[in-house]
Amino acid sequence: MEEAEKIVMVRGFRASAVAAGLKKNKGPDMALICSECDATAAGVFTTNKVKAAPVLLTREHITSGRARAIVVNAGNANACTGAPGLDDARTTAELVAKGLGLHPEDVLVASTGVIGKPLDMGLVSAAIPRLIESLSSDGLTSAAMAIMTTDSFLKISQFAGHAGGRPFSIQGIAKGAGMIMPDMATMLCFITSDIAIEPDDLKKAFYKSVEKSFNRISVDGDTSTNDMVLVLANGMAQNGRLSERDFREFETGLGQVMEELARMIVKDGEGASKLVDIRIKGADNARDAINAARTVANSSLVKTAFYGQDPNWGRIMAALGRSGIVMNEGSVDIWVNDIQIVADGLGMGVDAEKRAAEMMTLEKFTVTVDLKQGEHEDQVVTCDLTHDYISINADYRT
Amino acid sequence: MEEAEKIVMVRGFRASAVAAGLKKNKGPDMALICSECDATAAGVFTTNKVKAAPVLLTREHITSGRARAIVVNAGNANACTGAPGLDDARTTAELVAKGLGLHPEDVLVASTGVIGKPLDMGLVSAAIPRLIESLSSDGLTSAAMAIMTTDSFLKISQFAGHAGGRPFSIQGIAKGAGMIMPDMATMLCFITSDIAIEPDDLKKAFYKSVEKSFNRISVDGDTSTNDMVLVLANGMAQNGRLSERDFREFETGLGQVMEELARMIVKDGEGASKLVDIRIKGADNARDAINAARTVANSSLVKTAFYGQDPNWGRIMAALGRSGIVMNEGSVDIWVNDIQIVADGLGMGVDAEKRAAEMMTLEKFTVTVDLKQGEHEDQVVTCDLTHDYISINADYRT
Repeated sequence: MEEAEKIVMVRGFRASAVAAGLKKNKGPDMALICSECDATAAGVFTTNKVKAAPVLLTREHITSGRARAIVVNAGNANACTGAPGLDDARTTAELVAKGLGLHPEDVLVASTGVIGKPLDMGLVSAAIPRLIESLSSDGLTSAAMAIMTTDSFLKISQFAGHAGGRPFSIQGIAKGAGMIMPDMATMLCFITSDIAIEPDDLKKAFYKSVEKSFNRISVDGDTSTNDMVLVLANGMAQNGRLSERDFREFETGLGQVMEELARMIVKDGEGASKLVDIRIKGADNARDAINAARTVANSSLVKTAFYGQDPNWGRIMAALGRSGIVMNEGSVDIWVNDIQIVADGLGMGVDAEKRAAEMMTLEKFTVTVDLKQGEHEDQVVTCDLTHDYISINADYRT
Repeated sequence: MEEAEKIVMVRGFRASAVAAGLKKNKGPDMALICSECDATAAGVFTTNKVKAAPVLLTREHITSGRARAIVVNAGNANACTGAPGLDDARTTAELVAKGLGLHPEDVLVASTGVIGKPLDMGLVSAAIPRLIESLSSDGLTSAAMAIMTTDSFLKISQFAGHAGGRPFSIQGIAKGAGMIMPDMATMLCFITSDIAIEPDDLKKAFYKSVEKSFNRISVDGDTSTNDMVLVLANGMAQNGRLSERDFREFETGLGQVMEELARMIVKDGEGASKLVDIRIKGADNARDAINAARTVANSSLVKTAFYGQDPNWGRIMAALGRSGIVMNEGSVDIWVNDIQIVADGLGMGVDAEKRAAEMMTLEKFTVTVDLKQGEHEDQVVTCDLTHDYISINADYRT
């Protein structure tokens, strides 16, 4: 990973990473991303009622719709740390603001790591000046590495487009793995763009993209206290006012970047060996479509069958049956890729299952369920549940 | 297991088991339990919308509130088998009724095993006469063994009491493991008693006991298509009309038998190595109490931490936070047995966690959460999530 290619950042952005000493392995564990001018900003946060201190602070800071910097630490979640934890998040923002000549409200804070331990502010305070010193226009890769915890690979995605005849770009980094679940999978994701865009337009494109990407993935059904996706657009592309076409191009690009990052997160789900798209067709209503997809995607038994490369459609039927949707068992069709294994609720026999099992040896496949109750569709990306998930999570803290 | 002690059955009941050839290992896989006279009967069934054929048939047969026999097969769930599957369940009841000189409606049918495969009625028809021939008053142990699938130990529980000055007894057998989840954990349980009891009283005691036992356990959050708990009381204790005190004694006994069987099922959860009681205190309302207990009990991350003997209370907080309950993070207390690890939402430090970790080396411990929002309490029994769960479920069919 030391040899990851250093990519050039979006115009007007710089980033850096240092080892503050918060991670047990003493590797890089703090990152800073900042824009040289004011940026339009938007964010979405965990729906968990237990929210980490940085989530509370950043929600407050982002209400202005503008921001300049994001400071992140890995190794300590600063969650379940009470009022002192919130003070620590606030102090972090203040120290960064002071070093960069900004207002504390311009700084967004994110954390990931162990819950319930006070943040070592001695280490954080000592690291911030070094973070500021080392800011550079090729620092994104280092920042992406520093925010990793149980992640096994780097997650960066980019998009280049045109608006008002001027080139603009979008870059995103993310960390994920484990505890991945809608709404707001447990993960951090930071997106930068140089597009000039109105706050309302940014929010519109951003929320839509989150809904189709991070809110459509699942690893283990748990939801974290620290989830956060942030976007900063600093306008340095000087594209002028966005036309309808320009907006759509930006929206497409943002959607692509987020979807790629979301899929990387599932692919890197703790211990995962397979990426599986769960597609629900023919649902009676939109809510049923997503509920069915999520229940199948989160079923431990279904996910273990994926690991075992076993087209055990009975487990899929059982998951559908408890998902609370409108369904008729006798109308259900199920496919693995293009191999139909269930027709009208009945198995298609050993040959079909054998061919489906072959599809399941692939690293990536799609399970499609047609409920034949209506016209609604939805889809969730999930992974298999493996021996390694247990190993990683049984040993995480100890 | 071949050497399991043969217990004498409740008065007026006989049981038997044979190898019909439905299990891959060719071991005993069909069982019959029958009463020599009419019995008062009650049942509860899976809440899954996909219900196996025997569930549909038995629900229909039990509406009379009376029954004489229960025929069970393991190895094939007869679920997702359409109209032919329902015909097969019906034929099974008819063959047993014919052999015993009963009406088909007197016979209850239960199945467990692989979903989606037609039941081999040639094997079933050939086995039924042998089941009837071998009925005996010490056949319960054999029946309990025959219904096992991934179970690793036999599940039998008994109770002896007095009603109207006469002794009565209760016996129950169960199969469980895997796919265990409220409501109606995926399992089969058959209870027999010789008490004389009115159908309404039996239902009252039965539903209450189910709610406190089988609806308070969790292994993996999945719910099966075949769950069924049945009780038959044949009145041979000749205890006359039940007094209030007698009723309470029966209710207590039934509760004890069901709770013991339910705990055995969790203990035998696929791959489980620990039994953990999740107790919620101080919930704002009854629904919150059970929802909080279930969300913690079903969290893969919490269950994996139990396996790792790690008092990772952050995962418990995160589970509470997404359970949809009324809560205030800053009011939460958490204990492992009598070791408090969280006070008012904050960790009690390394020493407390070290002592809690020692408690977690035990095969059985309790996690208590006090939400301090009200006076409601509830409790769910769960187990840890281990490497063996993955092995068992990845390889189940293949």
